[in-house]
Amino acid sequence: MPENGTRFRRWLKGLEAHRLDGFLVTHPPNLRYLFNFTGSAGIACCLATESHLIVDSRYIEQADSETRNCQSMLAEKSLEDTLKAFLSTSARFQGHTPRIGLEAHHISYDFVLRVQSWQTNIEWVPTRNLIEEMRMIKDKGEIQLLERAFQIAQTAYQHFAERIRPGMTEAEVAGILEFELRKAGGQGLAFETIVSSGPRTSLPHASSTDKRIESNEYVLIDFGLKYQGYCSDLTRIHLSPEAKRPAIYQVVQEAQEKALALIKPGARSDQIDAAARSVISQHGFGENFGHSTGHGLGLEVHELPVISHRRPRELQEGMVFTVEPGIYLPGQYGVRIEDAVAVTHDGCRLLSDRNL
Amino acid sequence: MPENGTRFRRWLKGLEAHRLDGFLVTHPPNLRYLFNFTGSAGIACCLATESHLIVDSRYIEQADSETRNCQSMLAEKSLEDTLKAFLSTSARFQGHTPRIGLEAHHISYDFVLRVQSWQTNIEWVPTRNLIEEMRMIKDKGEIQLLERAFQIAQTAYQHFAERIRPGMTEAEVAGILEFELRKAGGQGLAFETIVSSGPRTSLPHASSTDKRIESNEYVLIDFGLKYQGYCSDLTRIHLSPEAKRPAIYQVVQEAQEKALALIKPGARSDQIDAAARSVISQHGFGENFGHSTGHGLGLEVHELPVISHRRPRELQEGMVFTVEPGIYLPGQYGVRIEDAVAVTHDGCRLLSDRNL
Repeated sequence: MPENGTRFRRWLKGLEAHRLDGFLVTHPPNLRYLFNFTGSAGIACCLATESHLIVDSRYIEQADSETRNCQSMLAEKSLEDTLKAFLSTSARFQGHTPRIGLEAHHISYDFVLRVQSWQTNIEWVPTRNLIEEMRMIKDKGEIQLLERAFQIAQTAYQHFAERIRPGMTEAEVAGILEFELRKAGGQGLAFETIVSSGPRTSLPHASSTDKRIESNEYVLIDFGLKYQGYCSDLTRIHLSPEAKRPAIYQVVQEAQEKALALIKPGARSDQIDAAARSVISQHGFGENFGHSTGHGLGLEVHELPVISHRRPRELQEGMVFTVEPGIYLPGQYGVRIEDAVAVTHDGCRLLSDRNL
Repeated sequence: MPENGTRFRRWLKGLEAHRLDGFLVTHPPNLRYLFNFTGSAGIACCLATESHLIVDSRYIEQADSETRNCQSMLAEKSLEDTLKAFLSTSARFQGHTPRIGLEAHHISYDFVLRVQSWQTNIEWVPTRNLIEEMRMIKDKGEIQLLERAFQIAQTAYQHFAERIRPGMTEAEVAGILEFELRKAGGQGLAFETIVSSGPRTSLPHASSTDKRIESNEYVLIDFGLKYQGYCSDLTRIHLSPEAKRPAIYQVVQEAQEKALALIKPGARSDQIDAAARSVISQHGFGENFGHSTGHGLGLEVHELPVISHRRPRELQEGMVFTVEPGIYLPGQYGVRIEDAVAVTHDGCRLLSDRNL
């Protein structure tokens, strides 16, 4: 369980820097990060000197026992009613208009319309990624949990790879993998397992279907588990006995190598993306690599930083992200290879084994 | 695959009734319901005579092949940029201010702030549950898919129940169940499987941990799968060989029976809730049943109607929902029993076998 007293104090300092008198945290991964709350719903109301986590009856016992940096509070009717009552009786706002931050990219428009209709003297301030920017830089404990998540994923994959056979359906194959993930110590899935075969590999985000895997087809497997909240994310191409790696495999592999070689503090995310993309473009497949080269990993399977040309950002020690170039030829086939790295003080360390 | 031409025409009629010139659909289950799109992200822009589904490159091939009632459109940069360009070149709005509806309880505040900043002459209209109200009444095809989802869940549970033993951890037990769900034909999980044992059963939404199941403990299992997008949801108490059913089991069972007996078109959701709750209160456990008696099931595991005292609503033929009273004694133990029904023309039909 990560130590989060320090990060919580940094968070409160951040609020001051944004001239916020308070903040509502509602996004579950952020509730987990700051308060160690693992439930699926709650509203944390952070003020300078005290934070309350409002939960419904499903979660009150759990909140009492697992949370830190806050006091849990039971919502008798709805989370919002309790929040409203709490804020209107809070004496600290007498005499000035408090500025309370909201997680604008997570909170619904409906929620905002409702709190704005309360007729309190609160100024609701939309904010973006305040907690996500903190979460982007992992501490040692978090990196250890991510490493463990990848170890479990890889152990499971090895057992799985011995068990799958042509003739099985994609869904069966997904089931075998998910079972091995559990057996190896995974605590739930990070996302819906993708198993695609034959022409379906050209769909970058295919789900698993009842299609049977032919003996001359390869299988694309994109899978992730959670371990103490932290997500693994790997994509591998599994060859059936008579299947051959398509020529584009080597192109994707080379693109990944070029990207990996550049990763270190101070390099920019768009340069990493460009490195992978230029290899693929040189081979004439630029149009067939439509997604970004990678994304951050942590309490969510997609988080900051984004490794793309769009939002250039300097890499820093402690960032953890995927490197996953791909080539997709519609109606024919596709290849993606996905590994993950942690940025170190002078380069990066792979969290996954590229020879797996 | 459900026929959705009729429902789409009803949807367009509904927009007229709300004096909307257009609508943005962004919530994935709603995109699936109206357009048969199964991807995880997209924006459908519905106008009176044409609808476009904007997706990124991950989903364009899939959108081209699977969707109906709309034309797919590739977002070169972001979904929002493409939407903005499309709306600003659309000739149909010349001369008046179009009213375009948004799904206010799904769309983020951030998204709304951005579209409002576009300086177009569009009036963005927050709406609530327009598509969810339609989805609440299932057609025959949908009910068949739900029935199939429950059949698969029950077959899997029977195989599972033969395999679990004291000494296994909760997480192992969850893994076995999830594997059986896949084997029986499940296409992914509807939610994170809950397996709790001993004192952990008093947490209504416990996840599964490394705790080992003792031979004198019972196990609470709350699980759901997806079948063609439709969700099952069942909770059962599994007895280890030396474990006994606690006395509260019968109370919960009786509460469920009383609720089930009242379900028919014209009965109100709050009456169903009150029927279950009064049995539990009569036995002195009113404070220990904190959640609602049930919730709708369909493309989401929690949807309309809510079976609680809060939002009374007349039941109608075609509604499908759970009936799941529970008693939770903090620090001791808890029991929940959950089944699901489809409302028929003169009563209801169980989708699950209460003797399972």
